[in-house]
Amino acid sequence: MANKMVYSFGGGTADGRGNQKALLGGKGANLAEMCHMGLPVPPGFTITTEVCTYFTENKGKYPPELAGQVKNALAKVEKLMGKKLGDPTNPLLVSVRSGARESMPGMMDTILNLGLNDDTVVSLAKKTGNPRFAWDCYRRFLQMYGDVVMGVQRANGEDHEPFEAAIDKLKKERGVKQDIELTAEDLKVLVERFKKLIKERAGREFPTNPIDQMWGAVAAVFGSWDNDRAIVYRRKYGIPHSWGTAVNVQTMVYGNMGDTSATGVAFTRDPATGEKVFYGEYLINAQGEDVVAGVRTPKPVAQLAEAMPKSHKELEQVRKTLESHFRDMQDFEFTIEDGKLFMLQTRNGKRTGFAASRIAYEMVKEKLITPEMAIARIPADSLSQLLAPIFDTNDRKVAVAGGNMVAKGLAAGPGAASGKVSFNAEEAVEMAKGGDKVVLVRIETSPEDLRGMIAAEGILTARGGVSSHAALVARQMGKVCVCGCGDLQIDYAKKTISVAGKTINEGDYISIDGSLGEVYVGKIKTAPSEVIQVLINKTLAPEKAQTYQIYAQIMKWADKFRKLGVRANADQPDQALNAVAFGAEGIGLCRTEHMFFGGDRIISVRKMILATNLQDRKAALAELLPYQREDFIGVFRAMKKLPVIVRLLDPPLHEFLPHEDEAIKETAKSLNVAPEVVTRRVEALHEFNPMLGHRGCRLGNVYPEITEMQVRAILEAAAYVKSHDKIQVHPEIMIPLVGYPKELTLQADIAKKVAAEVKATTGVEVKYQLGTMIEIPRAAMVADEIAQTAEFFSFGTNDLTQTTLGMSRDDSAHFLPQYQELDIVPGNPFASIDRAGVGKIMRTAVELGRKGRPTIELGICGEHGGDPSSVEFCHELGLNYVSCSPFRVPVARLAAAQAAIKEAAAKSAPAPKAAKKAPAKKAAPVKKAAAKKAAPVKKAAAKKAAPAKKTAKKVAKKAGRK
Amino acid sequence: MANKMVYSFGGGTADGRGNQKALLGGKGANLAEMCHMGLPVPPGFTITTEVCTYFTENKGKYPPELAGQVKNALAKVEKLMGKKLGDPTNPLLVSVRSGARESMPGMMDTILNLGLNDDTVVSLAKKTGNPRFAWDCYRRFLQMYGDVVMGVQRANGEDHEPFEAAIDKLKKERGVKQDIELTAEDLKVLVERFKKLIKERAGREFPTNPIDQMWGAVAAVFGSWDNDRAIVYRRKYGIPHSWGTAVNVQTMVYGNMGDTSATGVAFTRDPATGEKVFYGEYLINAQGEDVVAGVRTPKPVAQLAEAMPKSHKELEQVRKTLESHFRDMQDFEFTIEDGKLFMLQTRNGKRTGFAASRIAYEMVKEKLITPEMAIARIPADSLSQLLAPIFDTNDRKVAVAGGNMVAKGLAAGPGAASGKVSFNAEEAVEMAKGGDKVVLVRIETSPEDLRGMIAAEGILTARGGVSSHAALVARQMGKVCVCGCGDLQIDYAKKTISVAGKTINEGDYISIDGSLGEVYVGKIKTAPSEVIQVLINKTLAPEKAQTYQIYAQIMKWADKFRKLGVRANADQPDQALNAVAFGAEGIGLCRTEHMFFGGDRIISVRKMILATNLQDRKAALAELLPYQREDFIGVFRAMKKLPVIVRLLDPPLHEFLPHEDEAIKETAKSLNVAPEVVTRRVEALHEFNPMLGHRGCRLGNVYPEITEMQVRAILEAAAYVKSHDKIQVHPEIMIPLVGYPKELTLQADIAKKVAAEVKATTGVEVKYQLGTMIEIPRAAMVADEIAQTAEFFSFGTNDLTQTTLGMSRDDSAHFLPQYQELDIVPGNPFASIDRAGVGKIMRTAVELGRKGRPTIELGICGEHGGDPSSVEFCHELGLNYVSCSPFRVPVARLAAAQAAIKEAAAKSAPAPKAAKKAPAKKAAPVKKAAAKKAAPVKKAAAKKAAPAKKTAKKVAKKAGRK
Repeated sequence: MANKMVYSFGGGTADGRGNQKALLGGKGANLAEMCHMGLPVPPGFTITTEVCTYFTENKGKYPPELAGQVKNALAKVEKLMGKKLGDPTNPLLVSVRSGARESMPGMMDTILNLGLNDDTVVSLAKKTGNPRFAWDCYRRFLQMYGDVVMGVQRANGEDHEPFEAAIDKLKKERGVKQDIELTAEDLKVLVERFKKLIKERAGREFPTNPIDQMWGAVAAVFGSWDNDRAIVYRRKYGIPHSWGTAVNVQTMVYGNMGDTSATGVAFTRDPATGEKVFYGEYLINAQGEDVVAGVRTPKPVAQLAEAMPKSHKELEQVRKTLESHFRDMQDFEFTIEDGKLFMLQTRNGKRTGFAASRIAYEMVKEKLITPEMAIARIPADSLSQLLAPIFDTNDRKVAVAGGNMVAKGLAAGPGAASGKVSFNAEEAVEMAKGGDKVVLVRIETSPEDLRGMIAAEGILTARGGVSSHAALVARQMGKVCVCGCGDLQIDYAKKTISVAGKTINEGDYISIDGSLGEVYVGKIKTAPSEVIQVLINKTLAPEKAQTYQIYAQIMKWADKFRKLGVRANADQPDQALNAVAFGAEGIGLCRTEHMFFGGDRIISVRKMILATNLQDRKAALAELLPYQREDFIGVFRAMKKLPVIVRLLDPPLHEFLPHEDEAIKETAKSLNVAPEVVTRRVEALHEFNPMLGHRGCRLGNVYPEITEMQVRAILEAAAYVKSHDKIQVHPEIMIPLVGYPKELTLQADIAKKVAAEVKATTGVEVKYQLGTMIEIPRAAMVADEIAQTAEFFSFGTNDLTQTTLGMSRDDSAHFLPQYQELDIVPGNPFASIDRAGVGKIMRTAVELGRKGRPTIELGICGEHGGDPSSVEFCHELGLNYVSCSPFRVPVARLAAAQAAIKEAAAKSAPAPKAAKKAPAKKAAPVKKAAAKKAAPVKKAAAKKAAPAKKTAKKVAKKAGRK
Repeated sequence: MANKMVYSFGGGTADGRGNQKALLGGKGANLAEMCHMGLPVPPGFTITTEVCTYFTENKGKYPPELAGQVKNALAKVEKLMGKKLGDPTNPLLVSVRSGARESMPGMMDTILNLGLNDDTVVSLAKKTGNPRFAWDCYRRFLQMYGDVVMGVQRANGEDHEPFEAAIDKLKKERGVKQDIELTAEDLKVLVERFKKLIKERAGREFPTNPIDQMWGAVAAVFGSWDNDRAIVYRRKYGIPHSWGTAVNVQTMVYGNMGDTSATGVAFTRDPATGEKVFYGEYLINAQGEDVVAGVRTPKPVAQLAEAMPKSHKELEQVRKTLESHFRDMQDFEFTIEDGKLFMLQTRNGKRTGFAASRIAYEMVKEKLITPEMAIARIPADSLSQLLAPIFDTNDRKVAVAGGNMVAKGLAAGPGAASGKVSFNAEEAVEMAKGGDKVVLVRIETSPEDLRGMIAAEGILTARGGVSSHAALVARQMGKVCVCGCGDLQIDYAKKTISVAGKTINEGDYISIDGSLGEVYVGKIKTAPSEVIQVLINKTLAPEKAQTYQIYAQIMKWADKFRKLGVRANADQPDQALNAVAFGAEGIGLCRTEHMFFGGDRIISVRKMILATNLQDRKAALAELLPYQREDFIGVFRAMKKLPVIVRLLDPPLHEFLPHEDEAIKETAKSLNVAPEVVTRRVEALHEFNPMLGHRGCRLGNVYPEITEMQVRAILEAAAYVKSHDKIQVHPEIMIPLVGYPKELTLQADIAKKVAAEVKATTGVEVKYQLGTMIEIPRAAMVADEIAQTAEFFSFGTNDLTQTTLGMSRDDSAHFLPQYQELDIVPGNPFASIDRAGVGKIMRTAVELGRKGRPTIELGICGEHGGDPSSVEFCHELGLNYVSCSPFRVPVARLAAAQAAIKEAAAKSAPAPKAAKKAPAKKAAPVKKAAAKKAAPVKKAAAKKAAPAKKTAKKVAKKAGRK
């Protein structure tokens, strides 16, 4: 821990810098940076995240040096402001706010108006000439402090939050309806009641000494790093619990000092669409929390030009300064106190995938950033938003004509969603678990709703603006969101929405358009996105599709930077065509068994399984041969000369047999055998752990005739396409589930034999490669031996994860969610590769595989192939390609480019410290910052392994790595 | 390949030596050795195993130099004998026999009387003055040659072997019944018919040139290395297919030249009991194959003293010479040709586990060998024969009284077996698969019966002596065997045995005593062995039990040499007592869930599972607590201060719930809930792959209250025993299925909390250790992190094998047998640790574990812990102990000693070549010889890893490794 724990800012200078987010948190670092930039920032100081870590580890104790440093920093602020904390005649009031490295909106605690007590409130009244304002500040402070620091909260059985109940009681006594109708004298009464309430509930007095108040608030903020909702949030966004939060103590400025005061939140560009417009909202005579909380619906920032022209002009200037300095879209908070503008925060603005892409694209065109920076900055996953469905045009027309468009709110999360109405988070989670699509409908959302928002397709709120909690979270998660839709009358008790004379009940369908803010009753079909219309359906001309233009440019850049190849998993010709349209450079996995279910084929498949001797089995296989050949012809034609990896039969045979009595009877009839024959075979094939059973090459080795038929179908199809279509097909035959080297050599012998036969009968020689999946740990352990036969490895990380972790994907729902809650697993290992376990085994396979065959081609075809973090890991491993579902191909291309850029940056950076100073780095996504912190260690490790890696790289190049 | 491919022997000298078994095969090497020892060996030469390998790899071609070397060697023999191969007036006749490094009785081919043709047969007749003998030799040669070299065999649909059919036909024509009644003239006719038969069936003439005959025979013998039955045999005994066989061409000597000739097989000690008596059998006027084939029942060798006193005396001398030279029990073949003794073979005799132990024990007492040699030479697995059941004394008395003892045969494989009668190998295999105990009953056995013999509990034959195929194989496999039981009339067609007026049908029970040769109809209860009676039942005084004396001495030696600790897997107090009796030094695995099924406990267990809230679950757990505590008290008392590893709940909860409707109803009733409640829970808990499901510490982490109860039961029991019995108990708490470090730390936190509570309530402080199983690959990959918390690792190699190989033990029967046939797997990975896969992962865990915690205690508790090869591997890994079932503890102790002796030998051997020359080494079991060949490589590897290993050793010592 560093000696310096407190960083001052204000008066046009600051101890810290914008690149010190790890130490000062995002808010603290950027407050310091804005001071350096000459922007008007109320003075204050930041207590570092290191203190938070110390505080957590030492059960609420501080380092001994802290008190002195805080005292000095406070003195600086007092000097700048000419006020003193707790001075009865000239009191300084401060806010105490959290500020983590990465923004966690609404997750942690904040205290405003700190410094007020029975003495200072009088001075404040006198100085502002507004006793009502002063007493209102005081009661707000008591309320916040009582709640956050002293733990006064709604008790079991209470309908209302106790402070709110006290307000309501007083309003009743005074016969008024609005808070604003309470007088200064009323508020004085309220203050007394609040103090009493605190003493009763917390068991101790509210601290009147402002220094005590400050330390109480600081402790509460540090403590709030570990509250439940913050932990849930961090888990969802992969923020390490070890980071900790900083605490910012800052001079209060007031947007609620009358009609010459205001407070607002603004974005330098539209965070929903990415459009380059000044975007935001404000409230006259309000405190900052009022805007974000969504209690009052604020006005668009454009209207400020009329209301406060001077301030609006200043803000326009601030907007420009921020973008040119930070070179990224900023989300900033401001307060106008009696006509004077203050900046309270700036940070890189959260945005939709749409907006991220458009902003990055346009900033390059504006020469504000480089293509590398653009690529690095678009969350790869969010790219799928460009591909997400929109409402079907006709269906929407019908809905409009039928009067089903019932309301319009703010377009807060683009895309179209249609689902069943749910009114609370728990039920939304349950409904989604049951397989329903859900739209979560709330008057307004709060951090408590997070789980429900994750489960829902879309979010609809009646209150709150585009920077409300609902909007922020939805944008970040890529959820469709319409907010501030005031026409909705939501009744939680009855579980109904009343709108436009209609009543919508829980479970009814509702449809929302998060790009236009429209709300429809009933279900509306969704239609493909613009990109899909151009690429796949070809129903839209590229030049007419702005989104497509952006998509295409991003992909072009990505392809320029990336080193990893990207293939697709596709089983059918149409899927193969999609894959090519999305830029796949081959098929990494064509599952032959999916072909087994089409049409009458399943009858032949079942005949094959029920055969009791080789002859019958061969006869059934002969029936299947033409089907398979035909499928492969289609796939090869679609893929042209691109490589196509065909995996031979993988699932256990019982998966193809019927299990219900009725189906067994039917099957028996169609096969002309007694039902008992089918039943017996089903029973004989039963497995206790099918995942670890008779499948993969264990089938092909026990029934070599199956392998023979499949290889024949592949090679005959290839020969046909080669001679008839004049296409240089490039088939790769993949043997699944190999664990013992001889499992592969026996299968390879069959392939060789069949290849010779096909050449003899067709007169066409087809070049093919033969390889294997690496999907059980043993294969990795003996990869050098396997590579003697295998010309390629493809990591089947789905199964490799199941075996390495001893964890069935199908069954893990029994405990994996709780494991995530308990922080046992860093994330879902079936979504992102478990680097410490599965990754280590993969690394062994890569090293041994290259040792056994330097030219070996290495790829991945598990579902991880489309997950950005896993793609990055594959890049680190030096694989030749990743393969994923066609719709994830763009994501993988982008993620691959990001991995390459990250690596290049790490290499070119002369030293980690210097890298931190480069301004371009500041704008990088938060995850990159984290990676950077880890860089020195990783680099050292990489260096150690350098000679081996170098060879591997060379070889990888040879093996055709892009 | 060496230049020298042919090694001559004979005339009191030889090119080779007894230690060249790898090159010359066992037979060839020992023939050479006997020449050096001055024993009478008919001259000949050996073609090396390297030629066999060349022959196999080059599809039947020989190295070009071979022909010349054979020619020279043959010339030497001809010179010694004064005869020439093919010389019409003075012909040399030879045998051509296989001879692999390890004896594979009856598996490969042999040709006798080679050199005969229409010319030489006349000379033979003249020289011996016995035309009938000469023509009989000729027809035997034609028959063997036709079968083995020219492939004339029974065709489909033929009832009899065609040569035998021809003999039968001629006998009918001549009106005689016995072969012996055919005259020389008859045999001449037969010879012509045989030649015609060969031409018809083989499509080519029988070669009359003896040189051609010889090359044909050599090729057939080399080719027979790869016949099916040889391959099956090698798989069963773990003999590498790459070894190849040598071929021995040797001057014929005749035991069938009349009543002054004989042939026999003898052992220097009794191979069944180990008793130091001259043991064996002979046939007057017979060829060697007649004794082994079991067609005629030979006489005990003792009777030779009367029939041929001079030869008997010579043989007694030979017996002494052999034992003092080879320092091991020898199994040798001899032929007396017209009163002159010839040695045809000697080798280390195969023996029962009983005999191996007794011989080793007594040879030490005789100062023939050292205790190390004794230990090294007893196959560890065979030690379990000393523990195998014998017939229950009373039950046998009843059987005898009831007249059920129906026959007496030769005691050829000790022990008692009772099972259902099966008459052929295939059916025996099927019956055994169905769970039946089987006794295989055959008139005589042949290599074709091997699979059936493996499947059966015991083997009973009507024909053949103690060196017949049945006896040899049974002894080697440790099967109970009674052979040569001539009273049995076996009818394969009717599937009956008629004996003593009774008829026994297929499937009826039969009981055999392989120590006494007795055969009983019906089932007889088996009783514990002598060792068990002394150690466990304490019904026999040690001094009265000879077998026990041997056992105890062997164990004493073993304990002196071994470095590995040996613990037992025991779940109940009585098992724990057994474990201690067998010498276990602790409990390596006490499975708590086995305790869940006793008495009423299962009701509480089900209550716990059906509980829908924490309160109900805790209530059910509170019911279980006293039961578990009581069990642990019993176990701790039994084990005294020895360590006891208790594993917390491991299996998935659904294993404790009923699945059948009736059982569900009953359960519901006993728990006072609706049946649907039980059904729903059963359904909710269903898993697709329970092996990879919600089990192990995944239960303890999702339901920490279960862990809490179990830890409480353990520590309260320990505290109780400590204070009431004044025993310094040593509990170790083992958390199963850990994959992520935090899974363990969370459980450790619970244990710590409970320990503090138990100390507070009981006032007794119990020292305990906390550790984990390493049973999924991920755990091995992050073992350094896990070792931060774990004080010990115990390898759960059952599950580790399943996950590493992606192979369910329960389901592997669908393909594993075929995988063994196809030679894909070197053996059953669930029996012996798969070193290349699972072993490599274990090694990683050992290295990382010691890195994370240098004092960590390492053990194994999978079923591999009682498998000698796996024990050896654990020794190599440097584990602290192995743990196995109580009855395997003696085996593990012996195997551990062998591993230590082997390691010490490898270390002390100055160079591998020198080691080979030491006579003591010659006598080592064959497996050791193999290991020695691999020694240089292994040593090099060991040296490389030396510094790390040294540290590990030191640490291991510290951690209490024996």
